Amino acid sequence: MPGTNSQTHKDSYLGDAELAALDAHWRAANYLAVGQIYLMANPLLTEPLLPEHIKPRLLGHWGTSPGLNLVHTHLNRVIKARDQDTLCVWGPGHGGPAVLANTWLEGTYSRTYPDISRDAAGMGKLFRQFSFPGGVPSHVAPETPGSIHEGGELGYSLSHAYGAALDNPGLLVACVIGDGEAETGPLAASWHSNKFLDPVNDGAVLPILHLNGYKIANPSVLARIPESELDDLMHGLGHEPIHVAGDDPLLVHQAMARAMDTALDRIALIQRTAREDGGAERAHWPMIVLRTPKGWTGPAEVDGLPVEGTWRAHQVPLSGVRDNPEHLRQLEAWLRSYRPAELFDEDGRPRDQVLECLPDDERRLGASAHANGGLLLRDLPIPALERYAVPVDKPGATLHEPTRVLGDLVETIMENTAERRDFRLVGPDETASNRLQSVYRATGKAWQGETLEVDEDLDRHGRVMEILSEHTCQGWLEGYLLTGRHGLFSCYEAFVHIVDSMVNQHIKWLRVSRRLPWRRPIASLNYLLTSHVWRQDNNGFSHQDPGFIDHVLNKSPEVVRVYLPPDTNTLLAVADHVLRSRDYVNVVVAGKQPCFDWLTLDQARAHCARGAGVWQWAGTEDGAGEPDVVLACAGDVPTMEVLAAAQLLRTHLPELRVRVVNVVDLARLLPKEEHPHGMHDAEYDALFTRDRPVVFAYHGYPWLIHRLAYRRAGHANLHVRGYKEEGTTTTPFDMVVRNDLDRYRLVMDVIDRVPGLAVRAASVRQDMEDVRLRHHGWIREHGVDLPEVADWTWTG
Amino acid sequence: MPGTNSQTHKDSYLGDAELAALDAHWRAANYLAVGQIYLMANPLLTEPLLPEHIKPRLLGHWGTSPGLNLVHTHLNRVIKARDQDTLCVWGPGHGGPAVLANTWLEGTYSRTYPDISRDAAGMGKLFRQFSFPGGVPSHVAPETPGSIHEGGELGYSLSHAYGAALDNPGLLVACVIGDGEAETGPLAASWHSNKFLDPVNDGAVLPILHLNGYKIANPSVLARIPESELDDLMHGLGHEPIHVAGDDPLLVHQAMARAMDTALDRIALIQRTAREDGGAERAHWPMIVLRTPKGWTGPAEVDGLPVEGTWRAHQVPLSGVRDNPEHLRQLEAWLRSYRPAELFDEDGRPRDQVLECLPDDERRLGASAHANGGLLLRDLPIPALERYAVPVDKPGATLHEPTRVLGDLVETIMENTAERRDFRLVGPDETASNRLQSVYRATGKAWQGETLEVDEDLDRHGRVMEILSEHTCQGWLEGYLLTGRHGLFSCYEAFVHIVDSMVNQHIKWLRVSRRLPWRRPIASLNYLLTSHVWRQDNNGFSHQDPGFIDHVLNKSPEVVRVYLPPDTNTLLAVADHVLRSRDYVNVVVAGKQPCFDWLTLDQARAHCARGAGVWQWAGTEDGAGEPDVVLACAGDVPTMEVLAAAQLLRTHLPELRVRVVNVVDLARLLPKEEHPHGMHDAEYDALFTRDRPVVFAYHGYPWLIHRLAYRRAGHANLHVRGYKEEGTTTTPFDMVVRNDLDRYRLVMDVIDRVPGLAVRAASVRQDMEDVRLRHHGWIREHGVDLPEVADWTWTG
Repeated sequence: MPGTNSQTHKDSYLGDAELAALDAHWRAANYLAVGQIYLMANPLLTEPLLPEHIKPRLLGHWGTSPGLNLVHTHLNRVIKARDQDTLCVWGPGHGGPAVLANTWLEGTYSRTYPDISRDAAGMGKLFRQFSFPGGVPSHVAPETPGSIHEGGELGYSLSHAYGAALDNPGLLVACVIGDGEAETGPLAASWHSNKFLDPVNDGAVLPILHLNGYKIANPSVLARIPESELDDLMHGLGHEPIHVAGDDPLLVHQAMARAMDTALDRIALIQRTAREDGGAERAHWPMIVLRTPKGWTGPAEVDGLPVEGTWRAHQVPLSGVRDNPEHLRQLEAWLRSYRPAELFDEDGRPRDQVLECLPDDERRLGASAHANGGLLLRDLPIPALERYAVPVDKPGATLHEPTRVLGDLVETIMENTAERRDFRLVGPDETASNRLQSVYRATGKAWQGETLEVDEDLDRHGRVMEILSEHTCQGWLEGYLLTGRHGLFSCYEAFVHIVDSMVNQHIKWLRVSRRLPWRRPIASLNYLLTSHVWRQDNNGFSHQDPGFIDHVLNKSPEVVRVYLPPDTNTLLAVADHVLRSRDYVNVVVAGKQPCFDWLTLDQARAHCARGAGVWQWAGTEDGAGEPDVVLACAGDVPTMEVLAAAQLLRTHLPELRVRVVNVVDLARLLPKEEHPHGMHDAEYDALFTRDRPVVFAYHGYPWLIHRLAYRRAGHANLHVRGYKEEGTTTTPFDMVVRNDLDRYRLVMDVIDRVPGLAVRAASVRQDMEDVRLRHHGWIREHGVDLPEVADWTWTG
Repeated sequence: MPGTNSQTHKDSYLGDAELAALDAHWRAANYLAVGQIYLMANPLLTEPLLPEHIKPRLLGHWGTSPGLNLVHTHLNRVIKARDQDTLCVWGPGHGGPAVLANTWLEGTYSRTYPDISRDAAGMGKLFRQFSFPGGVPSHVAPETPGSIHEGGELGYSLSHAYGAALDNPGLLVACVIGDGEAETGPLAASWHSNKFLDPVNDGAVLPILHLNGYKIANPSVLARIPESELDDLMHGLGHEPIHVAGDDPLLVHQAMARAMDTALDRIALIQRTAREDGGAERAHWPMIVLRTPKGWTGPAEVDGLPVEGTWRAHQVPLSGVRDNPEHLRQLEAWLRSYRPAELFDEDGRPRDQVLECLPDDERRLGASAHANGGLLLRDLPIPALERYAVPVDKPGATLHEPTRVLGDLVETIMENTAERRDFRLVGPDETASNRLQSVYRATGKAWQGETLEVDEDLDRHGRVMEILSEHTCQGWLEGYLLTGRHGLFSCYEAFVHIVDSMVNQHIKWLRVSRRLPWRRPIASLNYLLTSHVWRQDNNGFSHQDPGFIDHVLNKSPEVVRVYLPPDTNTLLAVADHVLRSRDYVNVVVAGKQPCFDWLTLDQARAHCARGAGVWQWAGTEDGAGEPDVVLACAGDVPTMEVLAAAQLLRTHLPELRVRVVNVVDLARLLPKEEHPHGMHDAEYDALFTRDRPVVFAYHGYPWLIHRLAYRRAGHANLHVRGYKEEGTTTTPFDMVVRNDLDRYRLVMDVIDRVPGLAVRAASVRQDMEDVRLRHHGWIREHGVDLPEVADWTWTG
């Protein structure tokens, strides 16, 4: 069939010399991969292999390594031949030994880590450090030059690859997808990324589906369906598959070289058609199906059981090498089967033939600047906020939709980056629902699918990315940021949990990267979480979950930041900050519904810079001594309820000295030692007092505030209200009532907690109870909030 | 082309009378769907429509409803014709109005909720309650009879459907997949479930991909690729697509009836071939591609913009009905277009023609016992634990791999359910890695793909389910449990975060179900999390995350339970408990590596029943008064370190009165008011004291313990050690050292915290520091732990 280059083709695509050189490179990489897994001495096998040369703990993944080495070798060939700017995403991250081997061979490893030189001494260290305490992880990781993808948790290689290719028209992103990874949901969804790739302004992605047949313990699904079914699947996903299959290395080299050339020729044709001829039809991009045995060239049998070509080759095929002489003998034979003396000179340097396939220095995969995106990063052209800020003559007198105003700011950033094309907005079909639609005045939604007359804002060259897959959105954005660009992910608050595990991995990546001097800072991953827990009027309980904040705050404090701007101008100030920041994961939670304006832009900036502060205008302190009670708040709805409560207290208990504290930057509550944004105890005490009751209205799960503040002197007096999984389809005010976050409940909390007030204010407390009940009854009868809540204006 | 039944076929598959009846049923359902979104009075339109008949807040999703109504109508037809046991999973959960309409029409709604009678009064209440405070959610939800699937968060319909079909050979599970949902990762992965469905012992799944073309604001990907590409995709996924497309209702009815019959005939043939003829070849199961306009039969245009057939029909097509007379007029015309007087009699009862398509009572979709699985649930035949328990003469003298022993228990449960087939083990390719492989002696791994000679344990009829998709595993198990069966999900601890959002939704489902008297309890969703944070020797940082516990404990306390059994016998006792439990989500964290045995089975049972207790044999209390310090632990590795620390203290500071407390059931630490398992303060104080220092070694993020215990009297003296995101590829002992959880650090913590000890025990403290450093140096040099750690035996 067309496009198939299997080993039944006996013709010679490569000349003998080139074939021999490619094979030498591949054997060298295989030798180095095995060496890393097993050896802590005698790296060149200059003496017979002895038990003491073997690492005491054998950790690593051989199974995928020879396939990755094959891909790397052949990428080298086409990169060199075409001077092609290329990045590779290694989905089977467990193939660390392979990628380390290749970057060492091409010299980029030694350039990054001069201590690991490209000679016998360096080879010894390369072997020893692998999966060794104080060394390097067994995965492709931040420590690996040329990598933007760990692959420990599988599923994200292809979306990372597409993210890297966006707005990089000259770049080829090869992406090796293991057949295990191919079973995951995030990977399965990300195939459709090709409906969003602009052949004019974006680069190309070349998926290489590596079917070595097995996962840890099972055959893989895609390796066990008929080839015609797999072809249908790839066609159905918008690809033209090219097959390479076999277990005879020389024949596979021929087939792989031909497949690579076929794929790159086809990509060039697609790009030329779109760029020069203005072709607008979506092309079927090429992809390669590579079928080679798992653990290829490793031991065929161990202890009488088949290993090569089976799941038993997944990790360490010979596990008893130190104690079992037969295993030791097999290992030595295996290593010598690559003929190391032909590959390395006496000093351990790769011989010329091995290095023949290498492209020029800066084109080598381990040297890609795209994989160290900070090198390419430019500051984002964010306009002055004054143009977008809403006027605030008096707190609480006007309403704005915060995210809609933010949309105007994002529109300008899109305009300012129209030429540079280094900013993208991603989201799962919610940009307009989240009221950011002004952005469509500057750019459309990326779309290469069919269009109809009735469609709006679709644009083959657009930079808003919408697909109903949070995983794909996250993967695109990660890939985009890691290659040195900027972006924003807007998402329904509850459903961002879909990417909990992805953000874990990204935070871990950043935590490690920050400690590597050669990795340059990249733009932060910024979440705008909106359509939040308190305003799911339409969707109810299934759409209510503020726990992403808790999830993120478990992770490395040098990376994570959480902001809860209470109004429009504070959202602008926070957005400006996070879009300029580097190497963080910033979580910004903000409403899309009309929200009272509390602060002018200047006030908002000052407040956000402090992260938490007293809103003097809202309280009733007399300036002398400490307040009777602190009303604290974090989040837009809790802030409104606290201010309403403060107003009720001013009316009903005017002699009470109330302090209102608003927290924008949640990590401020942590001790200074626990987070760079944490407050010293003295600061905390100055805000919250050491001994006065604090009633804290919080956006999310209330116990999070305790988890942050438990070490503070005043913690015993801290009483937190928040969301406690009481929700349904109901009105906004009923939601706060159900969760005891409403203004009346907060006033009752104050009365219950300020010493002496319980008796003195008993009738006020009863009034509050009564009005809560009245609200409840009204809402059940009329289906809407009482006008006094809906039309409430703060008159403090 | 074969299999296409589009409206170009003009032949009459249905007779006139049947066609008219089906259309009447469909129109009635559409009328009722619109009524629910808009009306709070005048349900039968017996008077002209006035603004006061309209709900003040218009909430709901019209767009998907007519398509769901079409599917329901035609399922009724084939169920009746074939007396087919059927369950339907409604992926577009936003189509609540449709499913509510249909269950009301078939009478099952009124049977479940007698107050909502099948007459005008009931219709009025049906309309009013929808998306109304105190009423029902806008989604298909636990409140909806016949449903096992909410669909608020998209992606899980098809895996739920497969879970329901497993081991239900007579059941047909129809599954409507919206084209939005089809873009999600979990849905994309779950198509491959057909490689795991046994045509002999399992029922059938009929996917119905509903391409109405749009999501909230965008065209959907699958609606905008050529039909031939979609066909390739479906073939590639192992299906035979049948197309139904059109916008002329009468023609679509014809096509849909034919498609349903074609699909069910083909399913019957596949099952007959496998069951009677012993055919072993994997069949291409039928699926239906249904293309009808979004918001079909709704307003074609509103305010001059096209609505029907566009994204504008997604929610409420006419939004200004109360204030805009033209919108009101359009709504009335829309409602009257269904000719309600033909559909309902003067008392609001559906006329005979409307009900003609309904199957017998117990076959109606809203009456399916499978959708109220507790009705079908039988107790799991769990054998006596004595056969599996490990002998413990003396604590800490022997080692066992806890999960391996659990595997023996699971093997027997598999044996005991060989005939009943109501127990499944699921996991992402990790059953053997997690050392549960004994189970393969009782049953194999479900597999319908191609097989090779070298494969092991694959079984067309197996009940272990392995696919490298945590999403699919979770979806299968949820579907299986919700339909009244039992199961266990074993997963790497770090990667269970992949299903964070799915478990959220399942917990929410259970929380609501528990409050509905008619929903019967189902078996709990049980997680075995292993390959945990402390023993990722091979994989390192990317595989270290104990935060799933934190995630789950944010959710409804009536549903969530977390257990950390410290050894093999406690794991058995916990497993026995959770497998017998109902309506919970149980998280069990246990190691697979060799672990010291501490408790006999009897002791383990007693300890687990208490959930937390003093291990007197491990401490040095003299029985008089309170201890000087409490060493607490939760988790297998922390328990080992605490017992080692206790031993060091006994040796070095023999006069110190040390109490050792082990916590198995984490929720015990919560106040009684916060969780059903929570302790009263008096119990807590009796265990942990009110004022003595408590050094707590915890498996996960340390602040979780503070979040649970912050209200306790002794909280200020509580010092917690746990995982703080310090990890890499290293030795087991180096991991605890890096995170300050090691025995030496714990002894230092005790010395630092017991009053007066800092001076008296300064030299002991220095010794501990020294030995930690010695360990660190040894590990970096040799790559293994010092023998004294590796071979440590507790001698207390």
